[in-house]
Amino acid sequence: MADVGEFIQVGILTSSDRASSGEYEDLSGPAIRGFFEEALISEWDAISVVVEDEQAAIESALIDLIDVQGCNLVVTTGGTGPAQRDVTPEATEAVCSRMLPGFGEQMRAISLRYVPTAILSRQSAGIRGQALIINLPGAPKAIRETIDEIFAAVPYCIDLIGGPYIETDSAVVESFRPKHARR
Amino acid sequence: MADVGEFIQVGILTSSDRASSGEYEDLSGPAIRGFFEEALISEWDAISVVVEDEQAAIESALIDLIDVQGCNLVVTTGGTGPAQRDVTPEATEAVCSRMLPGFGEQMRAISLRYVPTAILSRQSAGIRGQALIINLPGAPKAIRETIDEIFAAVPYCIDLIGGPYIETDSAVVESFRPKHARR
Amino acid sequence: MADVGEFIQVGILTSSDRASSGEYEDLSGPAIRGFFEEALISEWDAISVVVEDEQAAIESALIDLIDVQGCNLVVTTGGTGPAQRDVTPEATEAVCSRMLPGFGEQMRAISLRYVPTAILSRQSAGIRGQALIINLPGAPKAIRETIDEIFAAVPYCIDLIGGPYIETDSAVVESFRPKHARR
Repeated sequence: MADVGEFIQVGILTSSDRASSGEYEDLSGPAIRGFFEEALISEWDAISVVVEDEQAAIESALIDLIDVQGCNLVVTTGGTGPAQRDVTPEATEAVCSRMLPGFGEQMRAISLRYVPTAILSRQSAGIRGQALIINLPGAPKAIRETIDEIFAAVPYCIDLIGGPYIETDSAVVESFRPKHARR
Repeated sequence: MADVGEFIQVGILTSSDRASSGEYEDLSGPAIRGFFEEALISEWDAISVVVEDEQAAIESALIDLIDVQGCNLVVTTGGTGPAQRDVTPEATEAVCSRMLPGFGEQMRAISLRYVPTAILSRQSAGIRGQALIINLPGAPKAIRETIDEIFAAVPYCIDLIGGPYIETDSAVVESFRPKHARR
Repeated sequence: MADVGEFIQVGILTSSDRASSGEYEDLSGPAIRGFFEEALISEWDAISVVVEDEQAAIESALIDLIDVQGCNLVVTTGGTGPAQRDVTPEATEAVCSRMLPGFGEQMRAISLRYVPTAILSRQSAGIRGQALIINLPGAPKAIRETIDEIFAAVPYCIDLIGGPYIETDSAVVESFRPKHARR
């Protein structure tokens, strides 16, 4: 049997005033879960949380997912636009020890192929301890457009920060590790 | 008659030691005004100012244009290079509550099609209250190369930060709003 | 005889725990020196240093190369990934008065043509006094993929920050200056 790598606990954080108040159903968190179902062949479990667009609430949720629940990967959706209630990037930066600007750059470049307003996104990614946090767009369609492409670099990133060795289904995500880092 | 949206007050700030001292004529500010004349079909008025390359002077001018004159959009030109007197990005960041890194990324990517030295530009964009500030290049030709393309996202950005609903001539700028945001 | 510009002192800094301890040979510093040998037609001299992956050590080496040894260009290699021991970007930012985000963006975009994990790089560039500091990737192959392309903007950048006027062999690097800046 092929090696499928190690177990990973992932977190999915939806920041949305309307989804957290029950005004409408969160479709974005489930879209991210759907991606994990298709893409990950390592064992995994996801904890999903929906919080209002408040920086303190998002920070608390991120810290809980990583420091208490043991997530090595947290994917957020929503709250990355220019509006005053959009504070996910601020919360992400506040809880991270370092940022990875390449994620925001590439996600914006990908989304620009579809809509010119991708330029307005403040999406980013960063590291807290042994966890990678990535901000995805809010809309389910835009989520899959971006995560399918950027995820190729995520397994190796998680190796480098001391997390588990995870594997993806190459039919969905052709993840890449330099030769010396492959098992 | 078609809806042409709402009135917008725009600001045009040229930062240049030589233009502000009268050593030569400001051609960049008028190039931006020329763009607005072609692109905007909503009613608009522009206030143009020329200031020396001093961070404090640029900051004061930006604050006056937005907080006193009521601009919801300020476009700057000049002062974004690596030289010591280039301080427009510093002044912009100092007066903004948040930055929109996608603008700088895309403007550099556009200008790189023309000159490799586009990599040296520190152009950015940010939000102060209900106003968007965008740093454009200094040269009139480079101004039009960039603003014609990035402006597609500007009307929706101004919506999102609480400014007026503006419309562009789609023959010049095909501005984009998601379906739910269109009138 | 054609003008070949002015003399430049360059610095090459390899940050690597294993290379600095002698565990293996530094191949990245020599790859950068090889680039200068091919690309520069102005007179030049390079000072090469190898330091451990410690932020304070990298900062001291950068300051010495620029403030004491008189380098107008310092190229670093290594230490730009997401791992905890990767601290070259932090050291670079700490000693620079301003950053040039376009370098990191373009270097990541170039490397993304080869490997998706280029998104993980935190490479940057910045200015200290009359010196430009550029973080290159760690691997010799990736070094040449990026420096050959970005160097086109380096001579003009050094002009703008008050350094010497340098010239490149256009068969290796087609460096660019606006017409008014050419000698």
